Amino acid sequence: MLFEIISFVGKSDSGKTTFLEKLVAELLKRGYKVGVLKHDVHGFEMDKEGKDTWKMAKAGAWSVGISHSEKMAIIQKVTKELSLEEVAKFFEGVDILFTEGYKREGKKRIEVRRKGMEPLCKPDEIVALVTDDFTSEPIPQFPIDDPNPIADFIEEKFIKFRHVECALWVNGKEIELGAFVEKIMKEVNLALIGTLHDIDGSPKSIDLKIRL
Amino acid sequence: MLFEIISFVGKSDSGKTTFLEKLVAELLKRGYKVGVLKHDVHGFEMDKEGKDTWKMAKAGAWSVGISHSEKMAIIQKVTKELSLEEVAKFFEGVDILFTEGYKREGKKRIEVRRKGMEPLCKPDEIVALVTDDFTSEPIPQFPIDDPNPIADFIEEKFIKFRHVECALWVNGKEIELGAFVEKIMKEVNLALIGTLHDIDGSPKSIDLKIRL
Repeated sequence: MLFEIISFVGKSDSGKTTFLEKLVAELLKRGYKVGVLKHDVHGFEMDKEGKDTWKMAKAGAWSVGISHSEKMAIIQKVTKELSLEEVAKFFEGVDILFTEGYKREGKKRIEVRRKGMEPLCKPDEIVALVTDDFTSEPIPQFPIDDPNPIADFIEEKFIKFRHVECALWVNGKEIELGAFVEKIMKEVNLALIGTLHDIDGSPKSIDLKIRL
Repeated sequence: MLFEIISFVGKSDSGKTTFLEKLVAELLKRGYKVGVLKHDVHGFEMDKEGKDTWKMAKAGAWSVGISHSEKMAIIQKVTKELSLEEVAKFFEGVDILFTEGYKREGKKRIEVRRKGMEPLCKPDEIVALVTDDFTSEPIPQFPIDDPNPIADFIEEKFIKFRHVECALWVNGKEIELGAFVEKIMKEVNLALIGTLHDIDGSPKSIDLKIRL
C-alpha cells in the first residue's frame, strides 16, 4: 500500500470515535489527508430514497457514483465483505488511513482504553495505547484527551518517513516487494514508459492494470 | 480503461433517468455489473448528520468509507471536480460504466430525445439515439420504451467484444496503448512477476502503482 493503515481498536464505550475526531482534526491542521474507514456490522443507508442515485442502485446497478466540485461519493455492492486491503484501494491519495474496528485484519493497531476497562489486546499486538490510565505495559502510551502527542508519534513513525515508491497487487492480493524487486519493477516500467509519446512532463505517478 | 464508458446525454425532461433505470435492470438480468455515475451540479448530501462517518468528514477527514457485507461506500473531498477519467477509476470491476451528463467529457455518447425536442448533439457526436420519434439521421436509433434492443446493441458493441488487457495511467492521465506496446508492457511485467514467490496461482489481475 502506498500509505500506512492504522486500526483503532477498543471495547465499546472506550471513546474511539470521539478520540479519532480530535486526531483527524489535528492531522488536518498539520496538512495531511486522512482517510477513515468504518467497519459496519449493522447495515448502513447512505443514499436517500427517491434520489437518482438511489433509483439506479434499486434498478440493479453494481456501483453508483456522484461527482461534484467539492466531493464525490461511490456506493458499491459486494458479494461478500471486502477485505481491508480491498477497501483500502478506494482511499488512493491519502497520507494515512485510520480504521475503526478491523481488529483482526489490521496489522498495525492502536488500542483506545479507558480506566477500569480490561485490555482488548496484548502489548505485542498493538503499536500504541491511548488511555486515561497509564499502565506498566511495555508499549508507547498516549493521553486520550490530547491529540497532539499521538499525532507527533503517528506523523513521525507512519507518515513522514514512509517512502514506498512501488506497490504491486496480483489477483487482488498485495505482494510485499523487497527493495531490490521494487527497484527493478520501477526502473523497467519507467524505461518502457520512456519510449512512449504523449506523456506530459516527467512521470510522477504510474498506474498499470493488467487483466488476463 | 478496462471497461467502456457511455455517456447518456439529453435535455432535461428527456426521460434519461427513467430510461437508464430500465436499461440497468435489463443488463443486470443479462448478468452484467453496471456502474452509473451522475454528474452533480447542485451539491449532494449522502451522509446523515450525527453518524460516525459524518462526524469524521466534519472533523476534516479527506475521505470516509464504510464497509459492510452487502455494500460499501466512500465519500471523498476534492479540491476541484474530478475528470470523468479520474472518477471512473473508482468503478473498478464493472463491465460497463454509464454516466448521466458529462456531455463534453464523454467520448461515447448516447442521446435520449423525446418527440418535439431539438437535437442536443449532431449525428457524428453520438453512437446512438434513444427516442420515441425516429428520424432520418444516419445513426443507430432505438425505442425509448423498450430497453431490449439497445441492451443488445450495447452488449454486442461495448461489452462482449472488448478485450483490453492492459491499461496505463501516467500522472493521472490514461495513455492509449497500441497493441504492440500493450503486449510489451504485459509480457515484461508478467516475466518480472514470474520471478516472485508468494503469488497464489497464475496471475489473472495485476495492479502496479509507482509514485516518484
